[in-house]
Amino acid sequence: MRSVYFDNSATTMMDSRVLEAMMPFFREQYGNPSSLHFLGDGAAIAIRDSRRTISKALNCLPTEVYFTSSGTESDNIALQGAALAYGKPGDRIITTSIEHSAILATADRLRELGFDIHILPVDREGFVDPEELERSINHRTVLVSVMAANNVVGSMQDVPYLAAICQEKGVLFHTDAVQGFTKMDLDMQKMGIDMLSISGHKFHGPKGIGALYVRNGVKLKPLFYGGGQEGNLRPATENVPGIVGMGKAVELAMEGREEDIRRMTSIRDHIIDGAMQMDGIALNGPRERRLCNNVHLRFPGISGKDVVFALSDMGLATSTASACTAESVEPSHVLTAMGIPPEEALSVLRVSLSRFSTMDEADYFLDSFSQVLKGLREGK
Amino acid sequence: MRSVYFDNSATTMMDSRVLEAMMPFFREQYGNPSSLHFLGDGAAIAIRDSRRTISKALNCLPTEVYFTSSGTESDNIALQGAALAYGKPGDRIITTSIEHSAILATADRLRELGFDIHILPVDREGFVDPEELERSINHRTVLVSVMAANNVVGSMQDVPYLAAICQEKGVLFHTDAVQGFTKMDLDMQKMGIDMLSISGHKFHGPKGIGALYVRNGVKLKPLFYGGGQEGNLRPATENVPGIVGMGKAVELAMEGREEDIRRMTSIRDHIIDGAMQMDGIALNGPRERRLCNNVHLRFPGISGKDVVFALSDMGLATSTASACTAESVEPSHVLTAMGIPPEEALSVLRVSLSRFSTMDEADYFLDSFSQVLKGLREGK
Repeated sequence: MRSVYFDNSATTMMDSRVLEAMMPFFREQYGNPSSLHFLGDGAAIAIRDSRRTISKALNCLPTEVYFTSSGTESDNIALQGAALAYGKPGDRIITTSIEHSAILATADRLRELGFDIHILPVDREGFVDPEELERSINHRTVLVSVMAANNVVGSMQDVPYLAAICQEKGVLFHTDAVQGFTKMDLDMQKMGIDMLSISGHKFHGPKGIGALYVRNGVKLKPLFYGGGQEGNLRPATENVPGIVGMGKAVELAMEGREEDIRRMTSIRDHIIDGAMQMDGIALNGPRERRLCNNVHLRFPGISGKDVVFALSDMGLATSTASACTAESVEPSHVLTAMGIPPEEALSVLRVSLSRFSTMDEADYFLDSFSQVLKGLREGK
Repeated sequence: MRSVYFDNSATTMMDSRVLEAMMPFFREQYGNPSSLHFLGDGAAIAIRDSRRTISKALNCLPTEVYFTSSGTESDNIALQGAALAYGKPGDRIITTSIEHSAILATADRLRELGFDIHILPVDREGFVDPEELERSINHRTVLVSVMAANNVVGSMQDVPYLAAICQEKGVLFHTDAVQGFTKMDLDMQKMGIDMLSISGHKFHGPKGIGALYVRNGVKLKPLFYGGGQEGNLRPATENVPGIVGMGKAVELAMEGREEDIRRMTSIRDHIIDGAMQMDGIALNGPRERRLCNNVHLRFPGISGKDVVFALSDMGLATSTASACTAESVEPSHVLTAMGIPPEEALSVLRVSLSRFSTMDEADYFLDSFSQVLKGLREGK
């Protein structure tokens, strides 16, 4: 049976060249980077090279890149780390209603610690209003965190503008760029971003590795303590193969970036246009300022889970809202925040592309999706 | 040139069968375990299987095993998690003077938060006095953390006895078993251990993956927040290849365990006996109740770093105290805690074996070490 992977916002297939780059570090250059002998040196150099590659992609200094185990951990270091280093109970932290749970659950924890958590609403298309952000910043605000691109509906915020507002107000700005990195412009020199989270497995790198950009001069409180690795911000023996793999994945993603974005955009639009011609289908999220690899459809009256299962039986990997909430019977908080009625928010499907996706796969999806909808409607 | 890896307490070479077990999860079964489609299922099953393997090795329930990114993270979840869930400022937490920095630096952080951190001394051989532990437990004590086996000098504490004392006093007991796991008996049914940390890369598994055993009923506060993975104790998209690899590494380690321990012990003793015949050499740590793979030598008047560098030039990978402190010019806190004068504590060498080590490698080490000492003494 044909197999089409359209769930790239959940995770991606590792690039074969990433695996190739990692291989020597499993059983040859396997030393602890802190070791003084010949096997330590190679590992330490490999980490330095990966850090440099990632810093080039972000246009920042290598010393501003910290390796973590995941996007979730990066988000937590940014939020908890900044709140505890720069704030105290009663101080305000601002974020949005459509963040990943790594941000929202962390904000809940900070609320428990006494912080004043302010959640910005979004409009029907999933955008934050910059003026609303500006108004919500009071003199006790220490941190604003707004995700660069949404994982469910693909809305890309105007990060440079939001960051500039925060910079002007003297407030730290963090962005969760787990979905946005490699798919939108993120330039640390040009934008007033103080912290930015990325995750290796979202762009054909390994799972279990992420990074956090932290602007020089910003001193965060670590989440955990140990040996002095990663400038004491994130100790533990380094995941050398993971770090090397993520570095290679960044290199590959940046190489063909513009062409990849163009191609994904045209496949995305082909799917959206095809789906819009079917009966009873609506698009969630915006047409403009939308992630090049995101399609999110709504079909009231039919269960999104049933569609995912039926497509899976036809070899198509898709999801409803996000992988992290896939098991949940609750509607996605992102969709309800956008004003979609809860009962409709379970009748949705997310299709997320990668640079390996093809127009032919898109056509296979459209045919299968149309059949599945017909079947489920008739089956009632 | 010959290459001998005798730095297995810093990290180990991944077993080829571990890599083999991981391979399908990089580019074939690469789905997000939370996904509902065909690629999610395989990943979720692989995680379940690895959890089961590890629970068998610890003789606990699969639901008592939580995956983390490292031993350092496991230690931090145990200490911070128990302190914040069960304690409040002023409450006592007891640990020892020879713990890994993942414990001691975390204890420092908890002291900063107002906890009463009580550090137990050790004797000249690196052992904690159980009576001293018992006396130090007051009515405000919430947690005791004593490492199972020391990473520098290999002293193996009487964990069952220490755990029993804590159980009787109604105090949580954690052990950092990062070095001890697979090399000593650790049975969660028979021993009153509430939490136990392990790290994949210390027993021929991958870097970037660890686990924490948490006894059913013990509810820890997480370090970070996000999707509901790992029972909400440790969220983030699971590092599937890492989890699979660690599971395989545990399976392999447990298979030949007794024979491996016997063989490492005889190689260890061969090295100790050989070294003791050289001039001006002393053994740090005990002869009995010593990790089967640890040798730690002292040679006053000669720099340990110089010995490591010279041995490295001869293809021998060793270390001074521990990898995490390798760059440090300070003597190891473990050695000074044992009463070794600071100036002698820099004149040390750690040799750490693995199940792949051979008697022939031991002889090569002894010859090389003897030459290096001679050279350094004459070079003065």
